[in-house]
Amino acid sequence: MRMYDIIKNKRDNKELTNEEIKFFVKGYTDGNIPDYQASALTMAIFFNGMTEKETATLTLAMAESGDTVDLSEFGNKTVDKHSTGGVGDKTTLIVAPIVASLGCIIAKMSGRGLGHTGGTVDKLESIDGFNTSLSNEEFFEQVKNTGIAVVGQTGNLTPADKKLYSLRDVTATVDSIPLIASSIMSKKLAAGSHTIVLDVKCGSGAFMKTPEDAKALAEEMVKIGKNNNRNMAAIITDMNTPLGKNIGNSLEVIEAIEILKGNGAEDLKYVACALASEIVALSKNIDITEASQLVENTISSGEAFEKLKEWVTAQGGKKEWIENPDNFPKAKYSEDIFAENDCYMSSMNAEEIGISSVILGAGREKKDDLIDMTAGIILNKKTGDKIKKGDIIATLYTNNENSLKSAKEKFISAIEFSNEKPVEIPLIYEIVR
Amino acid sequence: MRMYDIIKNKRDNKELTNEEIKFFVKGYTDGNIPDYQASALTMAIFFNGMTEKETATLTLAMAESGDTVDLSEFGNKTVDKHSTGGVGDKTTLIVAPIVASLGCIIAKMSGRGLGHTGGTVDKLESIDGFNTSLSNEEFFEQVKNTGIAVVGQTGNLTPADKKLYSLRDVTATVDSIPLIASSIMSKKLAAGSHTIVLDVKCGSGAFMKTPEDAKALAEEMVKIGKNNNRNMAAIITDMNTPLGKNIGNSLEVIEAIEILKGNGAEDLKYVACALASEIVALSKNIDITEASQLVENTISSGEAFEKLKEWVTAQGGKKEWIENPDNFPKAKYSEDIFAENDCYMSSMNAEEIGISSVILGAGREKKDDLIDMTAGIILNKKTGDKIKKGDIIATLYTNNENSLKSAKEKFISAIEFSNEKPVEIPLIYEIVR
Repeated sequence: MRMYDIIKNKRDNKELTNEEIKFFVKGYTDGNIPDYQASALTMAIFFNGMTEKETATLTLAMAESGDTVDLSEFGNKTVDKHSTGGVGDKTTLIVAPIVASLGCIIAKMSGRGLGHTGGTVDKLESIDGFNTSLSNEEFFEQVKNTGIAVVGQTGNLTPADKKLYSLRDVTATVDSIPLIASSIMSKKLAAGSHTIVLDVKCGSGAFMKTPEDAKALAEEMVKIGKNNNRNMAAIITDMNTPLGKNIGNSLEVIEAIEILKGNGAEDLKYVACALASEIVALSKNIDITEASQLVENTISSGEAFEKLKEWVTAQGGKKEWIENPDNFPKAKYSEDIFAENDCYMSSMNAEEIGISSVILGAGREKKDDLIDMTAGIILNKKTGDKIKKGDIIATLYTNNENSLKSAKEKFISAIEFSNEKPVEIPLIYEIVR
Repeated sequence: MRMYDIIKNKRDNKELTNEEIKFFVKGYTDGNIPDYQASALTMAIFFNGMTEKETATLTLAMAESGDTVDLSEFGNKTVDKHSTGGVGDKTTLIVAPIVASLGCIIAKMSGRGLGHTGGTVDKLESIDGFNTSLSNEEFFEQVKNTGIAVVGQTGNLTPADKKLYSLRDVTATVDSIPLIASSIMSKKLAAGSHTIVLDVKCGSGAFMKTPEDAKALAEEMVKIGKNNNRNMAAIITDMNTPLGKNIGNSLEVIEAIEILKGNGAEDLKYVACALASEIVALSKNIDITEASQLVENTISSGEAFEKLKEWVTAQGGKKEWIENPDNFPKAKYSEDIFAENDCYMSSMNAEEIGISSVILGAGREKKDDLIDMTAGIILNKKTGDKIKKGDIIATLYTNNENSLKSAKEKFISAIEFSNEKPVEIPLIYEIVR
């Protein structure tokens, strides 16, 4: 078998065989196939796509290219949730304790933030003492005892995907739905959970800009998962506007606590509960109405909040911070942004707002940048809201006073106003099952 | 400027600017742009093509990436001829002395053979003493004195094309008309002649399999040349069947001598004279009928043959071998292939016949293989010929007795017979001017 022929077959729109795909993934991971052949192949895939069978094979081959997590001791109860990345998206912090309180097993690896989107691991680390680097033994022990553990990525997980993604990133072959889908799903398959619910974001703050593209990606990922015997669903949610009110690590943990206490922003609660309900329905094999009711009940009864405290405590975090979020340190500097006229907020560019929060110190531009856990933005008004002159639209928080000016400029350039109430954008476009 | 954006623009079917193309060619030649980005770009070009402007710019940038030959002292009289490569194609050996005898200047670099096609430089070296490695001074001196010199490629000509071609060769991006056209034409532009006539082969023994593809390539190359102020024409000729009767280095020189003596195979004479006439018409700015008459006359008067002798002598070759081709050494072993039935020869696969002659020792499989100058094939029958049982179809020649068996098998597998006379294929499909 020659890599040349594999490239040529894909270029000529012939379906690659399982053997060809495995030969490529193994050879590329081992370093026997050079980057210049891999990039020619990915560009050919960009143009000609991949069939459902090809995509499933590629995903599994990448999933098996390195370590995999064996969660089989927990049977079919393991569940995972993945978001394609958004601004203000703290749903994992809410969904995980909800579903764990209902008997699902969350044994999850999460990412750190990069660019305009945050990462769950960073957010968790804003809780004093929270340890996201458990040993394998600690991780499994905690899952057995509490039903929930979330750690940073460890081990040599999906090295084929890591190598291929880095290459795609510099050869303009990232924007290919089968390649995005197989990249995400290879990590999910390697992470071992039986039920996987995806939150596919679309809009200005997401990688997928339109509901159509998001749906295509969602369908592709659901197919891959089903072809690999997983319970699958994907919810296509809006990311034109940041989710909830708080952006930034400790600010987002505080907002998640609010939701689990039965308060907090409606949009965030709506999306988090939809995700949790999908997980519960799939995992328990019950209908979605019943699952939604269970989710509502576990919040209103306080059981989900209790599970959050149990989880944080198990991982070394200070329970008192969860019980009373006033314990979280505050940023030294803050600045309110005021409305200059009576109007409606007609749009927010979530990506630009995410960048504004990065400027304040809440995120990373490069992989090893340090994060200011207290930095971020609290949105007082969101798209569709009526605004009066002098209203506080948002407040910026930071420990770096010098960042306020450019963060404010960035923030202001990201929002638009109008005299008319804007057309409402749905929060959830569609659910792919 | 970033290579990433250049790849992305081409991927998204945006026309690249001159600056982008020059940035790529310079960066890739210098080693600042890695192979994996170049192969992603060439694959994107495979799918999206290049505009006339892009192709002209790419060609000139590659032509100027290394040394160029300055023939300006010869004014507009310099002419060049290029064949896309075929089996039994010895037209340069015929065309060059014809047009030189009519006052055109041939200051030409030629290639060596590789794979199933031969190379002019190898063929010339089958003449005892013929030196294809003239110094720059010797080359120019000979051109001034005789109007003709043909040497092997020297200097650092079109390094961008060399590097890019090697990459395309292993990434399945060779078959792209703008890339093939710019590769060929960059070498022609760098070689400096004012009039360029291309012989674009099509059929089983050629890179272009159909007249349509050959025409597209011919048109692309003619446009590139014209956009760079050259006199241009391209003749699309058949390469389903080997050209002429002799295949192999000294055998082809002997056949070229026959043609210049006014004898030899009709098909070969027809194609060689058509090429020579185009060159003469363009170079002297006269009409093609007049040019054809000049070509006929210079053969029948013996002037072209005299020019061949003058050329060979100037380059150190033995004139006596040209005057009497019986002086060429003969292969030690030969084998006749006989017809088994009364029939017509209905087709020949020129590529397979070329490979058969390589097996006999007439060509190279790898760059540094040694050539047996006497090895090859003389075709006694060709496609369309009526054959009687017991007729000699062809004779194989070699100094390696062991090669005869497999060369014969290859040859026989390459020809087909039928009871009906096959439909005639034109020798020249079209002339693009």
